[in-house]
Amino acid sequence: MTLPAGHPLSDGLTATSPLVRAMRGDRPDTRPVWFMRQAGRSLPEYRAAREGTEMLDACLTPDLAAEITLQPVRRHGVDAAVYFSDIVVPVLLSGVGVRIAPGRGPVIDEPVRTAADVLKLRPVDPSAFAPIREAVGIVVAELGSTPLIAFGGAPYTLASYLVEGGPSKDQLRTRALMVSDPHTWATLLNWCADVTGAFLRAQVEAGASVAQLFDSWMGTLSRRDYQRRVLPHSRRAFDALRGTDVPRVHFGLGTGEVLDLLPLTGADVIGVDWRLPLDAAVERLGTPLPIQGNIDPAYLFAPWDLLAAHARDVMQRGEAAPAHVVNLGHGVPPETDPDVLTRLVALVHEER
Amino acid sequence: MTLPAGHPLSDGLTATSPLVRAMRGDRPDTRPVWFMRQAGRSLPEYRAAREGTEMLDACLTPDLAAEITLQPVRRHGVDAAVYFSDIVVPVLLSGVGVRIAPGRGPVIDEPVRTAADVLKLRPVDPSAFAPIREAVGIVVAELGSTPLIAFGGAPYTLASYLVEGGPSKDQLRTRALMVSDPHTWATLLNWCADVTGAFLRAQVEAGASVAQLFDSWMGTLSRRDYQRRVLPHSRRAFDALRGTDVPRVHFGLGTGEVLDLLPLTGADVIGVDWRLPLDAAVERLGTPLPIQGNIDPAYLFAPWDLLAAHARDVMQRGEAAPAHVVNLGHGVPPETDPDVLTRLVALVHEER
Repeated sequence: MTLPAGHPLSDGLTATSPLVRAMRGDRPDTRPVWFMRQAGRSLPEYRAAREGTEMLDACLTPDLAAEITLQPVRRHGVDAAVYFSDIVVPVLLSGVGVRIAPGRGPVIDEPVRTAADVLKLRPVDPSAFAPIREAVGIVVAELGSTPLIAFGGAPYTLASYLVEGGPSKDQLRTRALMVSDPHTWATLLNWCADVTGAFLRAQVEAGASVAQLFDSWMGTLSRRDYQRRVLPHSRRAFDALRGTDVPRVHFGLGTGEVLDLLPLTGADVIGVDWRLPLDAAVERLGTPLPIQGNIDPAYLFAPWDLLAAHARDVMQRGEAAPAHVVNLGHGVPPETDPDVLTRLVALVHEER
Repeated sequence: MTLPAGHPLSDGLTATSPLVRAMRGDRPDTRPVWFMRQAGRSLPEYRAAREGTEMLDACLTPDLAAEITLQPVRRHGVDAAVYFSDIVVPVLLSGVGVRIAPGRGPVIDEPVRTAADVLKLRPVDPSAFAPIREAVGIVVAELGSTPLIAFGGAPYTLASYLVEGGPSKDQLRTRALMVSDPHTWATLLNWCADVTGAFLRAQVEAGASVAQLFDSWMGTLSRRDYQRRVLPHSRRAFDALRGTDVPRVHFGLGTGEVLDLLPLTGADVIGVDWRLPLDAAVERLGTPLPIQGNIDPAYLFAPWDLLAAHARDVMQRGEAAPAHVVNLGHGVPPETDPDVLTRLVALVHEER
């Protein structure tokens, strides 16, 4: 797969943006910054736009998903948009019954727990992604030279929702399936990789210039289990982007023990949560890759001077990497004052 | 404080038990084993005994709390009882409004989020622990030479409940208070340390031979924040046991980054979760202390041969420590088949 004609990246529209340059290891004049979960509940314009619409309906309504994706770019002046969606959207588009329970998260109608359950999962029909492609088209037309980041959940996190039936604290049933029935596990994770890979590919083909794979829950795995039973499937998800040269970002929570393994997924950029200082993360990573992160979201609720000092410290430690994309160490908390984020973007852009 | 006359430890009743010997660095003939959360929902006799009684009422009814504490010792033949309670019990006994919401966990009537809220917290009156002392008395009378482990929540985890108002995913409000207002934070954590320290002391004075401090949520902290803003308060909690020589166990989830710091709390034994193999944990710990753990609870749902092989691997890696107390890497999941636990105890006892 090569990028279609008119794609913002191959056309050179976004290729010289600070974000794409940094993700390719360059050091642009201003350090790029965006925020995970920047499109969402922290913004009053998001709450107004979403009013009366269910989460998954919003994700599948092109005009609305595009509008929500664009809102934080207009407001904060961040260096990228990230596609507004939910990691279960491709699961839904594959025919699995799922809804988002407010205040709880995704709930699966029939959890997937046995070999028979896994066999019932069907491959996703690429045409099901039509609303996604349409929304991405609207977004990139407005963004111009600002890149759009495609969004997808990593196979382990996706599988956790399917097996647990919803959010869970330590993914016990999921890990039980993993250690009890490796064959069924591999089949399930391959399915998840293909589904999320197709989701990322649809976004990239329609105009996204970067792809990020989120593995929110990998921190509950031992290093050995991650390496043997999860990592190969994350690589398979990224492999769906073969032939395109969009930078691939991999982010997970609690990855301190496995940072050196993450480049084996095929990631070009490694996102780091708030737990580990970036200079330590760069050292553990070993491979000289650009790094993304890792302002502690707790500081968003601190007096400005403390947040500013913390952000500067993060930027200084980020110097240890070949290149640094500033971000939070986790998603924007819904209760964040959006003005604080706008001010933070200005600080990052002024810093050098 | 020295242990009162008639205390099972000073009387020599429990001092030669495999558990206490191992916790003092000795290697008894059989390796001791117990399970965190062994008293609780996995046992049908627990569900029968608790029926119709609210969780916190059960904790404060001496006969019932004693019965529940003893059930897993009778059934599984584990090498210790762990006192049945909840980490918010001493908070409740200090006059803070709290209840346990079924399926959710502790809910605080008025969350503690400001300096004024913290100032309203009152010191706990030791006489409030009378029902705890009474329950412990009943337990140790029946246990004889089997030691009872006192149970308490560490200041950070306790403070998290107080600040968040209930269970939370990443303790964001708690960490926001920590980074925003260090003085209020220190006052709050000292209060938590004193309350949980008094709770542990009451159990030890009444007959417990070991004390364990649980810090379920410390894994959301960076190493720096743990070291500066949490560890000193965990030490203060253990300091409440000064003058007794009961072994002190410290357990937390996600402690891989700070294992070398944990002995600074004054702990004599370090509990390790399922993420890190015990031989790696011993190496990181640096200090030659006995270790406790760390069978992955996910294996409790695997075919027996896989669980047995995993348990033997844990025991072999535990050889790297001066002594090893076998346990899970987290609490017993409520849906565990209790027969699997009984069989696991037999395996550990037969192994050497």
